[in-house]
Amino acid sequence: MTAQAPRKSFGSDNHARTHPDVMRAIVEANAGDAMAYGADPWTERAIAELRRLSGADGDAYLVLNGSGANVLGLGLLLARHEAVICAETAHINTDECGGSERILGAKLLTVPSSDGKITPELIARRLAGRGDEHFAQPGVVAVTQSTELGTCYSLAELRAIKEFSAANQLRVFLDGARLANAAAFLGCSIAELAACADVLSFGGTKNGAMGVEAVIAMHPAEAVNAKYLRKQHMQLSSKMRFLGAQFDALLADDLWLRNAAHANAMAARLATGLANIPGVEVVHPVQADAVFARLDPRHVASLQKDWMFHVWDESTSTVRWMTAFDTEESDVDAFLADIAAVNGVVAV
Amino acid sequence: MTAQAPRKSFGSDNHARTHPDVMRAIVEANAGDAMAYGADPWTERAIAELRRLSGADGDAYLVLNGSGANVLGLGLLLARHEAVICAETAHINTDECGGSERILGAKLLTVPSSDGKITPELIARRLAGRGDEHFAQPGVVAVTQSTELGTCYSLAELRAIKEFSAANQLRVFLDGARLANAAAFLGCSIAELAACADVLSFGGTKNGAMGVEAVIAMHPAEAVNAKYLRKQHMQLSSKMRFLGAQFDALLADDLWLRNAAHANAMAARLATGLANIPGVEVVHPVQADAVFARLDPRHVASLQKDWMFHVWDESTSTVRWMTAFDTEESDVDAFLADIAAVNGVVAV
Amino acid sequence: MTAQAPRKSFGSDNHARTHPDVMRAIVEANAGDAMAYGADPWTERAIAELRRLSGADGDAYLVLNGSGANVLGLGLLLARHEAVICAETAHINTDECGGSERILGAKLLTVPSSDGKITPELIARRLAGRGDEHFAQPGVVAVTQSTELGTCYSLAELRAIKEFSAANQLRVFLDGARLANAAAFLGCSIAELAACADVLSFGGTKNGAMGVEAVIAMHPAEAVNAKYLRKQHMQLSSKMRFLGAQFDALLADDLWLRNAAHANAMAARLATGLANIPGVEVVHPVQADAVFARLDPRHVASLQKDWMFHVWDESTSTVRWMTAFDTEESDVDAFLADIAAVNGVVAV
Amino acid sequence: MTAQAPRKSFGSDNHARTHPDVMRAIVEANAGDAMAYGADPWTERAIAELRRLSGADGDAYLVLNGSGANVLGLGLLLARHEAVICAETAHINTDECGGSERILGAKLLTVPSSDGKITPELIARRLAGRGDEHFAQPGVVAVTQSTELGTCYSLAELRAIKEFSAANQLRVFLDGARLANAAAFLGCSIAELAACADVLSFGGTKNGAMGVEAVIAMHPAEAVNAKYLRKQHMQLSSKMRFLGAQFDALLADDLWLRNAAHANAMAARLATGLANIPGVEVVHPVQADAVFARLDPRHVASLQKDWMFHVWDESTSTVRWMTAFDTEESDVDAFLADIAAVNGVVAV
Repeated sequence: MTAQAPRKSFGSDNHARTHPDVMRAIVEANAGDAMAYGADPWTERAIAELRRLSGADGDAYLVLNGSGANVLGLGLLLARHEAVICAETAHINTDECGGSERILGAKLLTVPSSDGKITPELIARRLAGRGDEHFAQPGVVAVTQSTELGTCYSLAELRAIKEFSAANQLRVFLDGARLANAAAFLGCSIAELAACADVLSFGGTKNGAMGVEAVIAMHPAEAVNAKYLRKQHMQLSSKMRFLGAQFDALLADDLWLRNAAHANAMAARLATGLANIPGVEVVHPVQADAVFARLDPRHVASLQKDWMFHVWDESTSTVRWMTAFDTEESDVDAFLADIAAVNGVVAV
Repeated sequence: MTAQAPRKSFGSDNHARTHPDVMRAIVEANAGDAMAYGADPWTERAIAELRRLSGADGDAYLVLNGSGANVLGLGLLLARHEAVICAETAHINTDECGGSERILGAKLLTVPSSDGKITPELIARRLAGRGDEHFAQPGVVAVTQSTELGTCYSLAELRAIKEFSAANQLRVFLDGARLANAAAFLGCSIAELAACADVLSFGGTKNGAMGVEAVIAMHPAEAVNAKYLRKQHMQLSSKMRFLGAQFDALLADDLWLRNAAHANAMAARLATGLANIPGVEVVHPVQADAVFARLDPRHVASLQKDWMFHVWDESTSTVRWMTAFDTEESDVDAFLADIAAVNGVVAV
Repeated sequence: MTAQAPRKSFGSDNHARTHPDVMRAIVEANAGDAMAYGADPWTERAIAELRRLSGADGDAYLVLNGSGANVLGLGLLLARHEAVICAETAHINTDECGGSERILGAKLLTVPSSDGKITPELIARRLAGRGDEHFAQPGVVAVTQSTELGTCYSLAELRAIKEFSAANQLRVFLDGARLANAAAFLGCSIAELAACADVLSFGGTKNGAMGVEAVIAMHPAEAVNAKYLRKQHMQLSSKMRFLGAQFDALLADDLWLRNAAHANAMAARLATGLANIPGVEVVHPVQADAVFARLDPRHVASLQKDWMFHVWDESTSTVRWMTAFDTEESDVDAFLADIAAVNGVVAV
Repeated sequence: MTAQAPRKSFGSDNHARTHPDVMRAIVEANAGDAMAYGADPWTERAIAELRRLSGADGDAYLVLNGSGANVLGLGLLLARHEAVICAETAHINTDECGGSERILGAKLLTVPSSDGKITPELIARRLAGRGDEHFAQPGVVAVTQSTELGTCYSLAELRAIKEFSAANQLRVFLDGARLANAAAFLGCSIAELAACADVLSFGGTKNGAMGVEAVIAMHPAEAVNAKYLRKQHMQLSSKMRFLGAQFDALLADDLWLRNAAHANAMAARLATGLANIPGVEVVHPVQADAVFARLDPRHVASLQKDWMFHVWDESTSTVRWMTAFDTEESDVDAFLADIAAVNGVVAV
């Protein structure tokens, strides 16, 4: 895009650059030698801070990307034969090329979800065959917070899932690739969210990092074998200091929270502006950094000439517009103006 | 080490920092938005250059670390049921926590090797059970160049392996985590080395990068499914431009070759100096960036107070001393002086 | 049941005994020594006959049970990274404890199906993400003939699937655990059915055998690695002659067809009788050896006191009644009389 | 062989027929309907007896063959990331086509063994990398009793392994495909042998059964998930009564022990006879049903014209001669006479 598309991308929070503070931390970490594989002060500091922030009794592990975080996180919780209950829309089900099945051998038992969330009732539907060896045996419930549809579970919703799961011998994995956005939206702490999971990921990449995620084991039991699985899963970085430094920067002065709050605010600004544009329907509550909207397919094509974004569902002409830590108000406003224009109205 | 051990580490080429040119490229790539997952100009440039350098008819893929490169590379070549022939000392056998077996389900059929190399004769010993369903069926020969013991195959040796393998329906995977060091030692091109393999990795991390490796498929057949396997293996980076930029820098003005040649020269300087120190025996030809030496265990302990390095084999009191692109002559000389001192001689 | 429930089971074709002709063949094969692992005349005869019957250019493999046949069959067709398209009701999806995912690492991409069948239209819905590495990549379409709901694809329906699949670079696996029932219903040959698949299974166990299934590779390409995968999948029998003898008996004088035709006839007799019983609704066309019926849950409970059968769907009070090669007309009639009685009518 | 080779095979205990008592039990079980998947009186009786015989607090599971027993047994004991320590000569390492690696993803850490046995000292050599995530992490020690080389561990040897393993957080899997032969040789109970393992297999097939093995979990912890893994491993038989009946017969009146003792006696008779034949060297203690002998390769070829047996090691001209429950003294004597004849001596 740099050259071809000078305008801000609304395609993905992965299109954004690395936050300058994170980049500075990386550059500063590049001084002399450091022990490999995590025995360096940057990583040690990041891990300590991640444990503090989440309230984990287990441990935290830096990994290289979101798929790595998800597969490792599930792997820490699943017995060899177990299956995962998740929403049909879950990233692990739709966006990882079947990686969980391939790496873990685990079946995903999906439940339908219109807003990206699952509930105890939906989970319960998948428990019918328990104890019968012919049926896949769920061992883990996977939730995404914020969800792939830009919504957020309330703490009450998450707690209900955790409680139901615990009562039904199910562990909870929380895919927190955008956990910061949820914390910003809910105004709660990471620890409050983490308490609703047994293992969670905490994303950096979509929130200003260059490329790092954390997997957090809330209890010692799940941490026992984590480092071996991380290595087998090809997620152990040799020059780990450069992962550690990224989280150091994100966790300093709540940069993680400021980045996420800003991205959320930009999505909210976009949604607010859309309310004034007839012909564009926002289809999910806008609670994080994404706006899902339905509009005329010809208008989609017209907008894509100048702006980068993805069609989410061709059949319903639904698009996904994402903001990021570095989306500016002027980007949103210019985009809104163009959306309004293709819809034949003058933007506010 | 930074704080605690101000002296240059001889522990690993992974202890070294990122080369300034690579870091500069990363920082420069951090401008505005870029498409994710590799559709960015930095990655496209790196891939084009990797194809040119290797002469590959297939394609090249950036991955996140050496384990990822090895497992993906093997995965591109192995039929579902096949096994891998490799040296007992191979990194995939000794240093990846059984990752190849875990992720690929492939048995490693090891052959003994005193210098880290395998030969057609050693490979042939593992072919006895072919066609008999009770025996693991080798499909791939894995070689490491330069080897885990700091030695290099000659081109003639590699060609003999490739020829023998082709004649025996075996594909060749070359673990090139330190391929640059071999090219520097042999004075040959990457293409000459790559021609001896069907799939190879080409390492960046140990040679001045922050964290990136390339997997190169020499023929289109092996490239067909590579991108799906890379994703399933959790090796697809979202902000890929920062991987691409690293290789851009390494491949510009032969930085990869200069880095490796320098590291090799420092290892050679170390070995030369050791020749004058009685009580220290260099145990493998020094052909890359590693020196393996045997010395009195008390002297090992004494040296480790001031210098970082690993004991390779406790039982024989063999240590591994590694250099890197940023090892300086004065580092080597100071280290040599200390080695001489603990051995009771005055260094030259 | 033997002791407890003297009445014929309508619970499963797996409840039936071994057909006397099959048992006789087993006993007769028990003479002296025989080579292990299939190099015996019984197995060789069975394989030759299976190849002839199916018209396979590839080869046939005896395995130990239906799960083994399905997982091996899929394994012969799937590239390492590929997924399987199948009906939600497919045995591989619902009844094998997630075995395909566990053993093959393959994601199942399910499509809804009210009658157990899939169609080119349903398959097409799962092809949207092809070529995009984030999406699971379908490589195989799995159909069951006769289906898990007692229905049969017509040859035209199967051919349409095969044609559509071939045109879309998809291979077809046919789960033929009850293929004989379909052949009997359609009045077609096994070869006509097999021509609609690339790999199929041909069931023995549910059709009078003691425990044996065949996996048939229609083309040489799929047979290349089959014996190694069978061994790795723990499906290679040492005293294979006793598997071979079972198929020898089933294939002699069309016993397989007579058994299936009889079981089908008994299901049809049951369905015909049910037509006269108000309060019982047959919910799928009865085209094989199963009758799915909806009736008052209290009547289900009442019938289960005397008869063995399974509730298929608690929520709709749907039961599955299965016949077998050894179900007798009098069994059906007695069962009908009891069904009528609990429904408050006098049976015909 | 039946037709072609009227003489008793010395090739494998798998070449032998089913014992008449076992066959009778199978035929008798073929009366009317029975519940599938093990809920039948034959299986229930077999399981109860297996638990009694072994003293297991866990449970016992019937499976379809030896590979199935080994892979399931290991699977019950291994954490997802763990490796197995075993002898280089172990069946799981040499004879299962890499099945353990493929199905369990587990690396086998082999130790050299001249007589098929491993020792605490050999195990200890493989524990060096524990706690370091780069190294495969052993979790299970696998022993075979009687071994693949026809030798038996003494109870003292097994107890030493169990004790060492327990002290080192290792579980013990005992491959008991020929456990009966060991019990017969040692004059001990199955319970005494089983007490040296955490999970063991108890073989039927090589000892007079048609095709059945048991997996025995000594403690409840290992039994928790066993039935699900058995199903996923495609080892759950639908008409299980025919597996149950086989063990019923084997366990009645100690048929298992009589069969094994007879086979052992025939191997001993063969070994005794060989002592008088110059030119034939018995290379391992003969403690079960196998004799390994070294003789002139031309004599091997000559004997193979009339007798079925396998060359074990071409390079040393070592053959394996196996006896079975149905080998008769006259078979051994005739074989001895021919061996003597080709060696140019008159047999005793």
